[in-house]
Amino acid sequence: MNQPMSVMDGEECWEFLRSHEFGRLAFHLAGEVHITPINYAVHHDPETDRRTLLFRTAGGSKLLGVVMNEDVAFEVDEYADEKAASVIIRGKARKLDEHEEHKAENVPLRPWVNTLKYNVVEIDPVEISGRRFELTRPWKHMLPES
Amino acid sequence: MNQPMSVMDGEECWEFLRSHEFGRLAFHLAGEVHITPINYAVHHDPETDRRTLLFRTAGGSKLLGVVMNEDVAFEVDEYADEKAASVIIRGKARKLDEHEEHKAENVPLRPWVNTLKYNVVEIDPVEISGRRFELTRPWKHMLPES
Repeated sequence: MNQPMSVMDGEECWEFLRSHEFGRLAFHLAGEVHITPINYAVHHDPETDRRTLLFRTAGGSKLLGVVMNEDVAFEVDEYADEKAASVIIRGKARKLDEHEEHKAENVPLRPWVNTLKYNVVEIDPVEISGRRFELTRPWKHMLPES
Repeated sequence: MNQPMSVMDGEECWEFLRSHEFGRLAFHLAGEVHITPINYAVHHDPETDRRTLLFRTAGGSKLLGVVMNEDVAFEVDEYADEKAASVIIRGKARKLDEHEEHKAENVPLRPWVNTLKYNVVEIDPVEISGRRFELTRPWKHMLPES
């Protein structure tokens, strides 16, 4: 029997994050948990060898949320007929200062929608984990035989 | 110029939720925000005309999280080359009692992975919202002409 789930190591997680550009941010806002889809990019600082995620946002609930409470979670996934994979980061978010915003110029942080987004937020990971699933879709074996 | 974003009404949001089976749950756990992918199904109670989401889970952080704090957010999305759509629910989650678990028998709550998941959790929506995006991908127009 195949293992239905396997764990990715840290490098696999980062490779997965680098090869995607769309994920979901979970954040606190006034004591509630909120979730929103975002475009992101991985930033690698060669001097410190530190990897973070960057995204752009206009003022609004995402920005207010992470300014009031830095604790966030972020998820990227993909799925097809027989396989799925999901990488999750827990970390600390902060709005970059003006003198740091140039970081976002050097990564493939490509907006999908042509609206102005002034602020750059960085997520500094505390934990990163990834899992791959074999989608056995067991109900398929429950169908009556024809 | 096309509007890059449009808002779905409540019925569109529910139709979108009914036509998908995979989303991401954001929940509180020990003061942190967590996120995890889940399979779900929409449950419609014809007597009360109330619609909720159901998912199955083994014991673990998801279950502990929603038992300790019912406040959750849930997101389902899809995206292709030129379009994306995302529906978000904010609501209250609770583990169903044994005498209520039959609700999960009557919905297409199909596990993707063949592991045993004993508990059924119901998300009762407080807010539901959906957005569709035209992916203009403006950087494509920034490419140098050949």
